[in-house]
Amino acid sequence: MTTLYFEDFEPGDAHEFPGRYTFTREAMIDFARQYDPQPFHMDEAAASRSIYGGLIASGWQTVGVTFRLAVEGLIGRTASMGSPGVEEVRWLRPVRPGDTVKVRAEVLDARPSQSKPDRGLVRVRYETSNQRDELVLTMVGLGLFGRRPAGR
Amino acid sequence: MTTLYFEDFEPGDAHEFPGRYTFTREAMIDFARQYDPQPFHMDEAAASRSIYGGLIASGWQTVGVTFRLAVEGLIGRTASMGSPGVEEVRWLRPVRPGDTVKVRAEVLDARPSQSKPDRGLVRVRYETSNQRDELVLTMVGLGLFGRRPAGR
Repeated sequence: MTTLYFEDFEPGDAHEFPGRYTFTREAMIDFARQYDPQPFHMDEAAASRSIYGGLIASGWQTVGVTFRLAVEGLIGRTASMGSPGVEEVRWLRPVRPGDTVKVRAEVLDARPSQSKPDRGLVRVRYETSNQRDELVLTMVGLGLFGRRPAGR
Repeated sequence: MTTLYFEDFEPGDAHEFPGRYTFTREAMIDFARQYDPQPFHMDEAAASRSIYGGLIASGWQTVGVTFRLAVEGLIGRTASMGSPGVEEVRWLRPVRPGDTVKVRAEVLDARPSQSKPDRGLVRVRYETSNQRDELVLTMVGLGLFGRRPAGR
């Protein structure tokens, strides 16, 4: 498979990744126990008494799932060099057991690194929606990608 | 244990949470396989050939660990109602197997909700550092907290 480099990202490029992810109760509780141990993420009875009226996924798990679908759909085929950070995450709706999500990504801008000539920084907006096409998460992430080697 | 409400957050309040978390190779790979399947997060040999020179934790796992320590150290004792989002995440240094991190949090500001009189929004800056007191992550998160019921 051809590797994608920094030069392959153009502002306005948009992709809907083919992958889908279905949240199971087990994966939700497993994630919450390790990384977000709040009752409405891991305790069915407590969750039903909370403002959410039932178990909801940790927002951080939804971020992780978004990123997994992005890696499988795009980033895994690139000369990715990691990320310096994220500009914004918005959790718009709860994600519940059985919900299936998909991810759309759009390149906002791309600029070569000032200090390191071998890489460039790409800003990407991610939109994650559920099986009813309701947005559950938006996120603006930064990615570092290697520049295309001469002659390739 | 006394529940903390929105009114208990004051700008400038700072806490270093007592908890510590040590990243194991197993937990790093387990997280990466599910949520960030890039080679330098889950494949020792590929990681050693990458710019990182060895396995590093997914930045999202470091966020999750930061949040877990915050829930154990503070948020678990509050009238937390979840979060609308995060303003910024910065990954400053790689986290490697065996690294132990701790988290400091500072309240940036707190304001009552305009639309929902039962809650308020608190902006918190988190700083996560390793066993050499080097910052590995900073993050500015938003939290919704219930307001103190009358008479409590």
